[in-house]
Order: sequence, then C-alpha cells, then structure tokens
Amino acid sequence: MSSVPLSEFAVHLRPGDNVAVARKPIPGGTALRLDGTTVTVSAPVKMGHKFAVRPIPDGEAVNKYGQVIGFAGRNIAVGEHVHVQNVKLGSFERDYAFCADLPAPLPPPAEYRTFLGYDRGSSRPDHQRYGTRNYVAIISTVNCSASASKYIAEKVRTSGILRDYPNVDGVVPIVHRGGCAMQYEGPDHRQLERTLAGFAKHPNIAGFIIVGLGCEIVQASHLVEAEGLIQIGGSKQPPTVITIQEAGGIGKTVDAGVKALAELLPRMNDVKRVELPAKHLILGTNCGGSDGNSGVTANPALGVASDLIVQQGGTTILGETTEIYGAEHVLTRRAVSKEVGEKLVERIKWWEWYTGVFGAEINNNPSPGNKEGGLTTIYEKSLGAIAKAGSTAMVDVVRYAEPVTAKGFVVMDTPGYDPVSMTGIVAGGANVCVFTTGRGSVYGCKPTPCLKIATNTPLYEKMESDMDINAGPILTGTPVEDVGREIFEAILATASGEKTKSELHGVGEEEFAPWSIGPTL
Amino acid sequence: MSSVPLSEFAVHLRPGDNVAVARKPIPGGTALRLDGTTVTVSAPVKMGHKFAVRPIPDGEAVNKYGQVIGFAGRNIAVGEHVHVQNVKLGSFERDYAFCADLPAPLPPPAEYRTFLGYDRGSSRPDHQRYGTRNYVAIISTVNCSASASKYIAEKVRTSGILRDYPNVDGVVPIVHRGGCAMQYEGPDHRQLERTLAGFAKHPNIAGFIIVGLGCEIVQASHLVEAEGLIQIGGSKQPPTVITIQEAGGIGKTVDAGVKALAELLPRMNDVKRVELPAKHLILGTNCGGSDGNSGVTANPALGVASDLIVQQGGTTILGETTEIYGAEHVLTRRAVSKEVGEKLVERIKWWEWYTGVFGAEINNNPSPGNKEGGLTTIYEKSLGAIAKAGSTAMVDVVRYAEPVTAKGFVVMDTPGYDPVSMTGIVAGGANVCVFTTGRGSVYGCKPTPCLKIATNTPLYEKMESDMDINAGPILTGTPVEDVGREIFEAILATASGEKTKSELHGVGEEEFAPWSIGPTL
Ligand SMILES: [Ca+2]
Ligand SMILES: [Ca+2]
Ligand SMILES: [Ca+2]
Ligand SMILES: [Ca+2]
Ligand SMILES: [Ca+2]
Repeated sequence: MSSVPLSEFAVHLRPGDNVAVARKPIPGGTALRLDGTTVTVSAPVKMGHKFAVRPIPDGEAVNKYGQVIGFAGRNIAVGEHVHVQNVKLGSFERDYAFCADLPAPLPPPAEYRTFLGYDRGSSRPDHQRYGTRNYVAIISTVNCSASASKYIAEKVRTSGILRDYPNVDGVVPIVHRGGCAMQYEGPDHRQLERTLAGFAKHPNIAGFIIVGLGCEIVQASHLVEAEGLIQIGGSKQPPTVITIQEAGGIGKTVDAGVKALAELLPRMNDVKRVELPAKHLILGTNCGGSDGNSGVTANPALGVASDLIVQQGGTTILGETTEIYGAEHVLTRRAVSKEVGEKLVERIKWWEWYTGVFGAEINNNPSPGNKEGGLTTIYEKSLGAIAKAGSTAMVDVVRYAEPVTAKGFVVMDTPGYDPVSMTGIVAGGANVCVFTTGRGSVYGCKPTPCLKIATNTPLYEKMESDMDINAGPILTGTPVEDVGREIFEAILATASGEKTKSELHGVGEEEFAPWSIGPTL
Repeated sequence: MSSVPLSEFAVHLRPGDNVAVARKPIPGGTALRLDGTTVTVSAPVKMGHKFAVRPIPDGEAVNKYGQVIGFAGRNIAVGEHVHVQNVKLGSFERDYAFCADLPAPLPPPAEYRTFLGYDRGSSRPDHQRYGTRNYVAIISTVNCSASASKYIAEKVRTSGILRDYPNVDGVVPIVHRGGCAMQYEGPDHRQLERTLAGFAKHPNIAGFIIVGLGCEIVQASHLVEAEGLIQIGGSKQPPTVITIQEAGGIGKTVDAGVKALAELLPRMNDVKRVELPAKHLILGTNCGGSDGNSGVTANPALGVASDLIVQQGGTTILGETTEIYGAEHVLTRRAVSKEVGEKLVERIKWWEWYTGVFGAEINNNPSPGNKEGGLTTIYEKSLGAIAKAGSTAMVDVVRYAEPVTAKGFVVMDTPGYDPVSMTGIVAGGANVCVFTTGRGSVYGCKPTPCLKIATNTPLYEKMESDMDINAGPILTGTPVEDVGREIFEAILATASGEKTKSELHGVGEEEFAPWSIGPTL
C-alpha cells in the first residue's frame, strides 16, 4: 500500500513526541510517512485521537506537547491507537523548580492599542474602574430572594422604562441557590460574599440593589460591611438593601425594588464610552466541552491573544485548577517568585485533600465527551488547557473570586466546571472573557461579554450562531498566530461594545454559579 | 410590685421544664405567678425567648418540651434570660433505644376523606400515580442547557399556545447549576439523576422533555436508562431528548423544544380531576426561618395535620436531617423496626463525618435570625422541628430524593436548607407541601403546591399575601388541634386545586436546588 505524509492526516506536535494527533478520521491501514519511517495505523483513528509513531514499551512515558501525558499500561506498537485502554497515570514525580523557566518580559508592542470603554472614575481601584458594558444588577443574597430578584428584573424590562435609558445594557438579576445553611463566617460564607461583592463592584455594573430574605446567613448588612459596598460614583452612599421580611412579602419587595431601580437608572444612563488603553483589559479564559483539538488549535491561539493582552500591559486570568492539575510544574517554573509558585502548589495540595476526602479521583475530570474527543488523561488535558494563558510569567495566584489586581498572567483557583469557574473569574474583575470549546457550548456570563472559540471547523459550522471565532483552520495550515491575532482583535471590538453571539441570544443569567465547597447544612 | 399569671406572658410547655417561653415581649421586672411561686424576669425578654422558672445550676440540663435542649454554662437565676450567653451543648449521651416508644397505630378516622386529583393510571406505581397539579416539565441535565430550557418555557408561554390547553397548569423549566464536573457514577451523579428522575416521574408532571448540552457528565441517555424514564401514560415511549450539540446551537434547540412540547400538549391537556381517597396524599414538610414559636405553634399544629394524613392512610415526610440532629433519639424510639432506626443513625453518623471533614459545627445551623428569634441550641431547634411529623411510628428512612413508597411517617435525609430539602422531598413524590416559618418566607416549589404557615400573628399580618395559614392564635389560647385541623383541611383543598399564595405569585422555578455533596471538580 502506498504511503502519504503524516501531516496530511495528523499533527506531530513536537519532534520528541511518541504520539501524533489525527487531524481528521484516519482509515485503518493508512500508511503515513514521518521522518523517513512509515507508521501504519492499525485500526481507524477518530479526529482528535492519538496513535503511536514509535513503539512505547509498557511503563514508559507517552509524550505529547514535548511533555509527559501518561505512561503505557502495556506495550504499545507503532500505529496503535493510544488512549484510555493502554495509558495509565503512573506516579509522576513533579519537580516544581520555582522560577526556573521565568520568561523574559515581552518586548513593547509595535502599537499601543485602545478600546472604547467606560471609565468609572478615580474613586475606584483600577481593576474595578474600566468597564466594557453598562448593566444594572439586582444582587440576591440567598435563594429565598431569587424569585423576588427575577420578578424585579422582569417588571423593569416589561415596563418599557429602559427605553428611556439607552446607555443601560440591561438589568441583571444575580441569583443563585445558596446563601444560607452554611457556617457563619466560614469558607463558603466568605467565598459567596466575595463573589457577590465582585459582581456588585464589577466595572461593568453601573449600580446595584441588594435583595435578601432577612434571616439568611449571608446577611445583606454583613455583606455590605465586610466587603465595603457602596453605591455608584464614589458617593460613598450605602447601597439600597431590600429584605422581604422587612418589606412585608414578595409583592412589596418587587414594588420597592422597581422603585429603587427607577431612581438609579437616570444616573446609570449618564455614561459615555471613551477611548481607553488596552492595558485596562482583564481577560478571563476558560475551556469547556474540550476535545483533542482544544490543546492544538483554540487554546494555543487564545494563548497568543493572552500574550498580546499582556504585552499591552493588560491581564489574562487562567482558572480551572482541576484542569491545571498534573501540569502545575509547567507554571511553577514560570512563576515570578517562589512565593507565587508556592501559592499555586498550596492550592493543588488543597485540591488533593478535598477530592481525597470524597474518594474522588481528580483524573475523572475529562468527561465522557472529552474522552470521546480523544483526551486520555488529566495531564494531557491540563497541558492543553494551560496553553490558553500564553507564555508569559505567572505574576500572581489568587483565591476564588478574589480581586485580580496584578498586571500580566494571573492564576485564579477555581473548579474546572465552566459556569462556576467563570463566575469566580468575572467576580475577580474580568471585563472580557474568551471560552474555547471543542464539543460546543452556548455559554454566556452577564455582565461580562464572552467570546466563544470553536476548536474545529465542523463544530463552528454546526453551531455558527453560537460561535464567535473558528480556530479550526489551524488544522489545515492557518498559523496559530493568525487565529491568535483574530481573537485579540475580537477582544478589542467586543470590549468596545460589539455584541458576542451569547449576548445576542441573551444568555448569561442562569450561569451565575458561585462555588460552594460545602457542607450544605 | 403585683404579679400576674405566667400564662399571660409566657408558655410553660411541660411541668418539668425549668424554662418558659415568652408569648410576647415581657418588660424587665415583671412578676409572674407559676404554681404558687413568683418568677420575676430580671431584664426584658423578647417574644420567643426563654427565661428560667427555676434556678439552673452550672452544668445542669436546661429542659423544654420535657427534653434536654442544652446545659447551663454558669449558674442561672430564676427569671434570668436563658440563651446562647448562658447555655452550652455539653456532651449529651444519646440512647437510641430502638422501637422503645413505638406508638400504637392510630384508630381509624371518623370519616375517610377525599380530594380531587389526577389519576395517572395503573401503569405507574402509587407514589407516582396520584397528582394534585398538571404541569409539563423541561428537564435540564446540566447548567449548560439551563438558558435553553428557560427560553423554551418562555417561548411556549408567550406564544399563547397554552390558552388552548386549559387543563395544563403551565410549563416548568427544571434548571440548576450542576450536571457536570462531578465523579461519573459517583454520589453526586447518582443523586442528581435521582432528583431529576423524581421530577420527571412526579405525579404532578403530565409529561416532559429533556434538554442537555451533549458532553456533560449527567448524560441524558444515562439518565433515561439508569432511571427507566419513559414518556407519559404507560406508552413506554422513550422521552424526547434534545441536546444543544446535536441540534446545532441554542436557537435550534429552542425551536425543537417548542415543537416537542406543542406535540405533547394535547395529550397533557386530556386529563380530569377525579375524587381520590386522602390516603394518596404524600405530604412534604419543612420549616425555614424558624423562631422560638416554631416549636410551640406551627410545627406542633403541622404535626396534628401529619397525624390526620397518616390516619387517612397517607404519608408525611420529615426532612432536614441537620435539624433532626441532636434529637434523633426521639425518632429511633418511635422506629417501626431496629433496621429503620439504624438507617437514621447511619445518616446522622454520616453527617457527623461530613461536617467534621470541613471542621464545621452542626450546631451552627440556627442562623442569626433563628437566634434572634430565641432559639438557643440545635437540640432545641431539632425538638421543635421534629414536631412537624406528628406522633406516629417512623416507618421508613430514605436517602435524598429517593422515592417514598411507605405509608405513614417517613424520614428523608436532606440538609436543613429549605430549597435543597424541599427539592429532595418533592423528587421523592410529595404531592402537597407545608412549610412553617417564624421569620417569614416566600418559598414555593413547582410542580408541587406549598402551603406556608406563620408561627405568629405579627408575621402573618405583615406577610399575609405570602402566608396561607396563621398558627399565631395558639399563643393566645387557640388549641393546637384546631390549627392542625385547619392545616389538614387546607391540604385537602390545595390538593384539589385551590391555589396557594406562592402559586398565585408564580414562585417555584428558582427554587429547584438539588443537593450537591461535593466535590465540584
Ligand atoms: Ca475545560
Ligand atoms: Ca469541563
Ligand atoms: Ca471549564
Ligand atoms: Ca429550618
Ligand atoms: Ca428548612
């Protein structure tokens, strides 16, 4: 049988890799030429899946991205499909080597870029100052006030009053399932308060009211005091708090909420977009519904965009600690200091404790969909996920929903679960988000716009009404850098007001999902 | 100073109690007569709070309900306010004494009562057969399909199509924040599937569709197979499943969902209420925003209604294990068998392990609002909470969201947190719910109607538009039994179609809150 170049069917990412990744389905028996040898795939290989380009003896490392993604569970022959059936995790000795590979700062950009955003004024710290949207929020302290908060938003929307305030993007109810039955001043209480405060203070929120029940653990008064919440514009005015128990029921609460918003709206509307340096962009990243292409196309391309943002003096946030897991040594080597590196290791160890308590394997994170798409181990997935953050130094590691104040590449400790991760990242101050997906997602996260990047062209074509950018052409020769620049330009345009696909659909209210560690009492 | 009878200001619940509970605010210095002695309250006592009617030496038991609610943390004088400042938990030796106090079965009722409900036919087991409402559901498998599910419901509502189907109470999107990033086939996966299936099979759900993303852990196909989901009416037809990734995005998913519902609605509408014996009632109970009156008025009155339901051959469900905690020995003594008693003890021990992992104190459960209302310890709160379930034998203990198939008084293991607890109880098959509250709540839980009982008259008057029944008159002489019968009659009327206050407000969609044990990965 005649052979064809391997690059016609697959990507061999690094010269030392003993596996290649199928760019498209490869029929069984296909003979592929690679560096003067012939690799004959023994059975059909699906797109995104791996096959061996060299024999991998039982117990030896499986290499992809020039990194270890697992170990052969038995002897693997050349051309054989490499996946869960013949790869195991092994006990991978991790060497944190803090700061060992600290990258040099990027050279200044050829051009300093700008976007048209909202400047909330010098009374706000930088990370809460520069907005890309202009929403009004109804912050619900507890599930018991969620319906009331939704009704207030609905009543304002259907009243037609918003037509008088064209600069207001909308009213967002920030509602959730938590807020009580947790330890008072325990980790979940503090974390939920931090998250709610991150939204209240978010630069995309012009103003807000707080709606509670009255007897919940997450007391509105505690929230206001502990997080120093004030109303808009440096007035130091305390925010409006409405509790159902004081108002006398849901009907009166809704009336009071609508009245409070009606009073806020004229000031909320009194804003204009102004030209702002791109250094005020805080980019939140995430991947969800990953496939074997995520680490080859969309994530490295988003990494290019991350580097461009950082080069402008801005910030990029990498979350999803469970997806960093197993490859955190790549990041500790890029840490700006041992202290920052150790913050990440501390979080990794916490996750090992946390999942261990439940007898959970953190390797379970690749979902059935991920595995069907060709991802074999958490190491492989992690290395593919980290690519989103680009190549610059890791300048800080913050806890879930903590304000992100550093410039550069910052890690936030979040679960990998998309809505929970993004909720923390937006609370941290992200004013624009990018989400990569290989299987497809319709994710959105008010009040921050979120661009979605397809890792492959079939997905992009199937879900074009939900996908903002197609990274699939990387599989047919478009340089990663080109797609990265396309993402960067889309970030600037989105930050300046251009609507993302999920904004056009109105998605982003059901997705507020604060992380609950437990226990729910 | 002249003295007045104690009963004018307070309730001395049992002769052996060394505390009494203020019915109304008592001015400091008020002299109260009790059994020939005079108790002079040393400082003002708020309504619902306790004061000593006998000296309680340091370390001795504080007795209320004829039970131990805690131990004196120092010497407490007659007339002194008894609360967190002078009561500690102590190490209360619990004696489970399985079946020791098994109550005799209740005599047959004077009259066998009926309600007008829906009979879904003999192809369904009893606990999924007899409905009190007729809703259509959109079951979302994961947060990633929550917005799509909401949009389907909105589009059906605003289309006007429902006007042609007057027997359909509405379309309910069953949406949540979970569904992925959990152990595949682990406890949270199984528990969420059980919960979703409980709603899909609920007797108040005429039919349903399932909407997923496609790559989530809670795969629709796994849910359908593991839980044996079929479409309505014993047709054995598999339910309609729409996934966003297969449909090609959110727009097409919404269109497909609306189309699927339009096809289902004529059959869903083809139902009539028929007279059914009250033994088919499965009552779900809960208390939220409790105060010092909860255990004196509304909960004992609901206990009377529970007994009346059980006497009719029906079922009453007590959840909120964290609120049973500390008083579970009252229930193990009422267990129908040692096996049933041990099921409860096993759950209590699990909770001790679970909260211990996080260094959480289960005693933290009384919220600031509870404490302000006069509840001092978890024992006190638990004994007050258990009163809801009445006095009959504990016939079964089930796990969260498990089908409740036994007749009589059943315990379901749930957290105390109202929406999470009620979600499990409704999933278990409750076709009518009663919720008691002292501080006020606007809780509702589609598809099951939920009556709300105020523990005190000021609350009832303040939130009359949200409260269905006032148990406050118990504080001014109305017998507990009378209010209990009023609740029982309201249950029958509600089951027959009369709308509760929360139904009139439309509450009950934000409150679907499946219990997540953790970890979120
Ligand atoms: Ca991911
Ligand atoms: Ca994921
Ligand atoms: Ca993710
Ligand atoms: Ca409660
Ligand atoms: Ca409760």
